[in-house]
Amino acid sequence: MAKNDTTAENTQLKDIIAHAKEYGFVYPSSEIYDGLQAVYDYGAYGVELKNNLKRLWWESMTRLHDNIVGIDAAIFMHPTTWKASGHVDSFNDPMVDNKDSKKRYRADVLIEDKAAGYEKSGDLERAQSLLGAMGKLLEAEDLAGVHDLIVNEGIVCPISGTSNWTEVRQFNLMFSTQVGSVAEDTTTIYLRPETAQGIFVNFLNVQKTARMKVPFGIAQIGKAFRNEIVARQFIFRMREFEQMEMQFFVRPGTEMDWYKTWAATRVKWHLALGIPEDKIRKHDHEKLAHYANAAMDLEYEFPFGFKEVEGIHSRTDFDLKQHQEFSRKKQQYFDPEINQNYIPYVIETSIGADRLFLMTFCNAFVDEEVDGKQRTYLKFHPAIAPVKAAILPLVKKDGLPEKAREIVEALKYDFNIIYEEAASIGKRYTRQDLIGTPFCIAVDHQTLEDNMVTIRHRDTTAQERVPISELHARLSEACSFRRIFEKI
Amino acid sequence: MAKNDTTAENTQLKDIIAHAKEYGFVYPSSEIYDGLQAVYDYGAYGVELKNNLKRLWWESMTRLHDNIVGIDAAIFMHPTTWKASGHVDSFNDPMVDNKDSKKRYRADVLIEDKAAGYEKSGDLERAQSLLGAMGKLLEAEDLAGVHDLIVNEGIVCPISGTSNWTEVRQFNLMFSTQVGSVAEDTTTIYLRPETAQGIFVNFLNVQKTARMKVPFGIAQIGKAFRNEIVARQFIFRMREFEQMEMQFFVRPGTEMDWYKTWAATRVKWHLALGIPEDKIRKHDHEKLAHYANAAMDLEYEFPFGFKEVEGIHSRTDFDLKQHQEFSRKKQQYFDPEINQNYIPYVIETSIGADRLFLMTFCNAFVDEEVDGKQRTYLKFHPAIAPVKAAILPLVKKDGLPEKAREIVEALKYDFNIIYEEAASIGKRYTRQDLIGTPFCIAVDHQTLEDNMVTIRHRDTTAQERVPISELHARLSEACSFRRIFEKI
Repeated sequence: MAKNDTTAENTQLKDIIAHAKEYGFVYPSSEIYDGLQAVYDYGAYGVELKNNLKRLWWESMTRLHDNIVGIDAAIFMHPTTWKASGHVDSFNDPMVDNKDSKKRYRADVLIEDKAAGYEKSGDLERAQSLLGAMGKLLEAEDLAGVHDLIVNEGIVCPISGTSNWTEVRQFNLMFSTQVGSVAEDTTTIYLRPETAQGIFVNFLNVQKTARMKVPFGIAQIGKAFRNEIVARQFIFRMREFEQMEMQFFVRPGTEMDWYKTWAATRVKWHLALGIPEDKIRKHDHEKLAHYANAAMDLEYEFPFGFKEVEGIHSRTDFDLKQHQEFSRKKQQYFDPEINQNYIPYVIETSIGADRLFLMTFCNAFVDEEVDGKQRTYLKFHPAIAPVKAAILPLVKKDGLPEKAREIVEALKYDFNIIYEEAASIGKRYTRQDLIGTPFCIAVDHQTLEDNMVTIRHRDTTAQERVPISELHARLSEACSFRRIFEKI
Repeated sequence: MAKNDTTAENTQLKDIIAHAKEYGFVYPSSEIYDGLQAVYDYGAYGVELKNNLKRLWWESMTRLHDNIVGIDAAIFMHPTTWKASGHVDSFNDPMVDNKDSKKRYRADVLIEDKAAGYEKSGDLERAQSLLGAMGKLLEAEDLAGVHDLIVNEGIVCPISGTSNWTEVRQFNLMFSTQVGSVAEDTTTIYLRPETAQGIFVNFLNVQKTARMKVPFGIAQIGKAFRNEIVARQFIFRMREFEQMEMQFFVRPGTEMDWYKTWAATRVKWHLALGIPEDKIRKHDHEKLAHYANAAMDLEYEFPFGFKEVEGIHSRTDFDLKQHQEFSRKKQQYFDPEINQNYIPYVIETSIGADRLFLMTFCNAFVDEEVDGKQRTYLKFHPAIAPVKAAILPLVKKDGLPEKAREIVEALKYDFNIIYEEAASIGKRYTRQDLIGTPFCIAVDHQTLEDNMVTIRHRDTTAQERVPISELHARLSEACSFRRIFEKI
């Protein structure tokens, strides 16, 4: 918390947000209408980066593991799903209103901010005792106690300055809507708050139709929605976001081994993508969710501190059991190896596509001084860079554009290519740096004679002379997912 | 309409739905809870097919045209967007309730069904006069007139059998939800009923940040939602569906040329994908939407008749003009070639990803008798087939599984591969036919000696002997998008 306040880090996040907007990665949603809070749109380069990351995750899950297949379940689900999963009853945040300002706050965030204040002023003990007290009250669902804690700590509303608080109430984070048109047939359904349940309700469908044997996994990418009270930190916490989840079904009793295996595999995945080892860490959950018997976050060091990018959860047989109870349909698997029926246990890996995007963007963002000059570039791994190469005729005449166009034709079916002929070559290099294009390919007069071009490398700005005939193979090699997959 | 009723065609659709379910392509959503009407989930092979189709569309739009880039706008948008677009006021269906059965119907569908009845009994003239009368009343928004037409035609409710109808009312098809947590700050927002508006509100953002010059296009793939009254025909009309839309911005006055160009390009796209020429046709809209000055559907002959798969619309400057008015922000482009500011005109190509999926599935579905035996297979183009190859050791011993695994390792990074060793080779071929795998690769004892395998081709069942070293190149050639792109 204290970390958020240091100016340098806010500046870096601000620079990143500004860069993402100016160079076509991320815009505020409906910006011409002054935006919609905590919702963002991906621009021309943003969508390519995001799609590459999604495809990388998808292929690494489904192709590198012959016991994992994918699905794509709808956002709309039968409402009983959310009764069974516990979301209707307990997917809540504790809220409190200030009666003077009429502003609503998350009660736990008010208390955490107070504790952060103690910590800042050096009173670590008081900070920890406050957080401990809050944890106990929340666990006991003692909302009156949480209210008293807020009042006794003298916490005031930042707007009104008073401690004139309402009682603390639970606020459900699911968005609801009405489906159906016949008045008496209208049903309240929810926008799914997590993609996982779409996998659980399809467990037997997938197991049977893809003829899977435990242990096996089901992967899915899709949107989820949460009516977050405190949505903040750019695309880190949004009301509409995209999850990439994999549920791995295992024999009961083997889940702890699989939990460790998947945690290790996922860490390797991030390192293979180019995240430095000291920027990523495991963080065990102190308090386990009602469905879990073990859980950890993989945290990345964002400009606003170490925060969760991915969760690895041992979800036990909670979800399948609940769906069995609520649907009255057996959710069992017959294991031929041990001749037994059981409800499998589940290990989940759950990563936010938007958080992965933000991590990748932060990790790629370089703003450095070289020889007294500022240079900004995005050092994406070539396999995920939005544009793979820019083809640049040195001048806009003498047949160079035509020659450059030939190269575009030879590459465009297999790679995302930009052709650009306006402005000086230096300016064009700079533009490509700003969107993270790993290779600039310059076509000059010499090219017309020897069919060689100059490749200029983004990170080093080093240049080398290469035959046109080698370009396709060079790009294939540099931009292939295989290079990342082989490290996982 | 009459076509729907013939038994043969209903049977074919039923066969397709059953096949899609049984072999892991499409399941009813939340099936264990008896489903959610007009919502479906994609299974292990369905999601691969759908992803391939989406990627094919995306790459053909953004890579084959250097003046088209993509975006990914959120489902949630500022609510004024839908005021400006006209959806709040006029995205309605005319509804009527039967007072006895309490069932609600689309008034126009009741009348269409009546007309279909006339047509069936040979009274074509009466059918057309009825449809003509309805068209005029709807255009004039004369809902009382529509009500009288229903009563005068003696149309009765299929449940109650009475013509005791309420007045006809407009019913808005948008789903709404509440965003925000502070009671007095809560805003009603909509789930977007079309993706197009996400492109329009970002027109200037994209034009500036990707430095595009008119004419240029913006492509997008994403979910849209409509509270359809009569959702039916499997995944053809769903309440949650996925659109692939491209808005092409042109200089005013040039839109009719671009309209024709895009219609031709899109037809070529479908043919390149393997749709026979006589199964696809253009259908000009008889009645234009308020924003259009020309519009056509590309229709495919589904088992239930020729129906829209894609729309090509000349949307004029309607949307940008409306957003300019409602946002009070200029939506103009300065055209350096003619030294003028203008609001561009727009040609839209809009295809439903789910309808494309259904068309592809129907087109691939073959159920034929060969030598007195029934054979069912899915003849997908290899570039979009969910699984590219199955690697099958002839027997489960003698080192054949190990040899087969080596082949899997060599191919799995670049292709979606299945390895299978259980059951007879014939049974395994059949299974792959049923999910549309173009190539079965059998490893036998001879393979251990000569490093050759047998490729068995799905459509012909022909077999040929091929060196293992050639497999990667063979699959690359057969499954590459390039083969399709080159035909567009």
